[in-house]
Amino acid sequence: MTQTEEKLEAQDTPQVPIDKIVSLCKRRGFVYPNSEIYGGVAGFYDFGPLGVELRNNIRRYWWWSMVQLHDNVVGIEGATITHPRVWEASGHVENFTDTLVDCKKCKRRFRVDHLPAENLASNSCPVCGGELTEPRKFNLLMETYLGVVEGDKMKTYLRGEACQNIYLDYDNVLKSSRMQIPFGICQIGKAYRNEVTPGNFLFRQREFEQWDLQFFVHPSEMDKWFDYWKEYRFNWYKGIVNHKDRLRFHEHGKDELAHYAKKAFDIEYQTILGWQEWEGIHWRQDWDLTRHSEYSGQDLAYTDPNTKERYVPWIVETSGGVDRTFLFLLLDAYEEETDPKGDTRVVLHLHPWLAPVKCAVFPLQKNKEELVNKSKEIHRMLQRYMVCQYDDVANIGRRYRRQDEIGTPYCVTIDFQTLDDQTVTVRNRDTMEQVRVPISELTMYLLERITWK
Amino acid sequence: MTQTEEKLEAQDTPQVPIDKIVSLCKRRGFVYPNSEIYGGVAGFYDFGPLGVELRNNIRRYWWWSMVQLHDNVVGIEGATITHPRVWEASGHVENFTDTLVDCKKCKRRFRVDHLPAENLASNSCPVCGGELTEPRKFNLLMETYLGVVEGDKMKTYLRGEACQNIYLDYDNVLKSSRMQIPFGICQIGKAYRNEVTPGNFLFRQREFEQWDLQFFVHPSEMDKWFDYWKEYRFNWYKGIVNHKDRLRFHEHGKDELAHYAKKAFDIEYQTILGWQEWEGIHWRQDWDLTRHSEYSGQDLAYTDPNTKERYVPWIVETSGGVDRTFLFLLLDAYEEETDPKGDTRVVLHLHPWLAPVKCAVFPLQKNKEELVNKSKEIHRMLQRYMVCQYDDVANIGRRYRRQDEIGTPYCVTIDFQTLDDQTVTVRNRDTMEQVRVPISELTMYLLERITWK
Repeated sequence: MTQTEEKLEAQDTPQVPIDKIVSLCKRRGFVYPNSEIYGGVAGFYDFGPLGVELRNNIRRYWWWSMVQLHDNVVGIEGATITHPRVWEASGHVENFTDTLVDCKKCKRRFRVDHLPAENLASNSCPVCGGELTEPRKFNLLMETYLGVVEGDKMKTYLRGEACQNIYLDYDNVLKSSRMQIPFGICQIGKAYRNEVTPGNFLFRQREFEQWDLQFFVHPSEMDKWFDYWKEYRFNWYKGIVNHKDRLRFHEHGKDELAHYAKKAFDIEYQTILGWQEWEGIHWRQDWDLTRHSEYSGQDLAYTDPNTKERYVPWIVETSGGVDRTFLFLLLDAYEEETDPKGDTRVVLHLHPWLAPVKCAVFPLQKNKEELVNKSKEIHRMLQRYMVCQYDDVANIGRRYRRQDEIGTPYCVTIDFQTLDDQTVTVRNRDTMEQVRVPISELTMYLLERITWK
Repeated sequence: MTQTEEKLEAQDTPQVPIDKIVSLCKRRGFVYPNSEIYGGVAGFYDFGPLGVELRNNIRRYWWWSMVQLHDNVVGIEGATITHPRVWEASGHVENFTDTLVDCKKCKRRFRVDHLPAENLASNSCPVCGGELTEPRKFNLLMETYLGVVEGDKMKTYLRGEACQNIYLDYDNVLKSSRMQIPFGICQIGKAYRNEVTPGNFLFRQREFEQWDLQFFVHPSEMDKWFDYWKEYRFNWYKGIVNHKDRLRFHEHGKDELAHYAKKAFDIEYQTILGWQEWEGIHWRQDWDLTRHSEYSGQDLAYTDPNTKERYVPWIVETSGGVDRTFLFLLLDAYEEETDPKGDTRVVLHLHPWLAPVKCAVFPLQKNKEELVNKSKEIHRMLQRYMVCQYDDVANIGRRYRRQDEIGTPYCVTIDFQTLDDQTVTVRNRDTMEQVRVPISELTMYLLERITWK
């Protein structure tokens, strides 16, 4: 255990080591290393049967609250490969770099911004003490080539951030959607970065997914909307975590701010590795639209239909990571509870809205045909409305544990009383309490508890 | 108009020219050319506000019917970049090629399999009649590089087909999901192909999305499951198109079959360009798992838990395109109706399950505060459950037309009677009939009609 881990373990709420989540994810089918049978590729992961359900729920909830519930927000979904000039305009070709040094002795490579201060000062390797090379810049954009003739290929890039499509499509959206400023465009999509040091599981990958809002405003309303989205996004995360005290804002200092930004805030979550960025709330001013106007030659200024004022809209951006949300929600939800007998129960306290499996249906006994038939009937009834598992293997206690570990909020058991009075027991994952519910009311009982509000 | 178009127009059911769909898609915000302000990039498109909703609905319906309703199917979602050895094992590095010829005179380039027979025979350019070069092969995989040191970069590929992740994760799924053969793994995800001649709008893109099922069976059950999925998939498409007669199977001839395939069927849809492939039902036998076992050194054979028999499972694949589905559904849904007065109504008869906007709410008049307030209240009530637009611009007739053109199945109008008796009119897109529905029953009235069954 590292010092950080020890310190955090000593707090009131124990933090879960990342390794426990990695192991659970692989064992229960949330996340696997990509291409594992070929030894894997650093920074790439595949999502398994439970992972893809959790991920879809996270995405859908974001989309529902950001796009569906906001009259002044619409969505798009752009290609991950764009014209290469996009990345010149955005500054990525020039500036999207990590600065690296090599150890002349042991040949290890380090990101300068990850080097301990003493090694920076002494210009020495933190591992072997050898002398370090001069810092060199490496671009993080991944290249690819379009076209099939050698001399005629077009070099372009996998998008280094998803949001660029929003600027590219801004004018088309304006013309086709009847939106007027202030309005926003949302997108969920992949981005690619040739990270020098991918790591911490899903936290820093080379292929990952972002969710972005770009909200276009009149400059005079910039402060108002910045504050609106800053609060909205913080409360959004607060609504889906158990440990509200592990959320905070980090305000960027003057030295961290982009030259066009008046202010910027990160929403951070506290893990065993410390406070980590979850989402950024950014003051982008007119930077993006102005640059794309200059580089493309297309005037992206806006004319107010009422005042006829013409201006380049300013942008409030909220940009977060789907995979980070996935990881932080698992870290937030994981708990090992010890009961009075000393038995340990591993449970994921995932929000019922987001849990990958919403309910499990058990016949009390596997060898009673009436119980099995009734259970399968109820399973078929429920699975049209929610992800629902059927399980008849081992005793009820073990079946509960299997569901607790993957965060299933409700377990439905069909017992002998069911055959008499057409009621079932519904067991709550968190309280472990059981209530009897008539079969005729079961679908609605569950839907009410798993449907986002 | 081409000859093909003329011939098809003469049939009972007129076919819509692709250009009309392209134009509608751009004008109403379904699809835009990617990077359009930079002149675009051939073969890449972005989905606009309505397009992303339609696409999400299509995906969700597929996922719901394939994964959620099938107890023996689970989903995954893998990275688009994998270990390069994957593409050697799959045969793509060697064989995923188009054969091209150039015209020595006009320098145009053609795919040999797209050349008219007479030009193939005469070895002459179909445009200028010039002499053609010898055929040459070009690989369609898009390359990229991982790592930051020039000499130390790893060349790999954007996946040329999404299904490879399913074979890569097969063993992890088996170990983590408690599935036993027969069972299937589904995935929706992007694939990339350096197409020589992208075209026909969304039909042949360089970045596109596939949905795949790989269903793993004992060899003795291969025929049975092949037939099951072949029928299931055909009926699935039949359930969401209006023109059932535009669907057919195309059985592959002996010369079209892969060497391991006993049979193969394409589900085809008839567009103005003729019969086109929508989805393939493939007999993959043990080809994929055997190849990956050989190349990775990991034994992917399966041991039956009951009989203890050990064998490499055989695979039934159903592989279709999300973007093709998007395009074919629009072609299938588009209609220009002329009313007795000679006015034309453009309407998308999209299945209410899939329509991007489920309902629109109109106050009869914009300048009556009670109507507007009531309308907004109803809009707020409905939008928690479905994508719902509010529109108070222009007369009701024009508002209906706007919604018809994007396929909105229901329009709700709030009129003076509403204020008296708390009912609204609900107007049906296809029949144009109106019924009065109490506000208290409105949500359920609509949900019953838009929820898939």
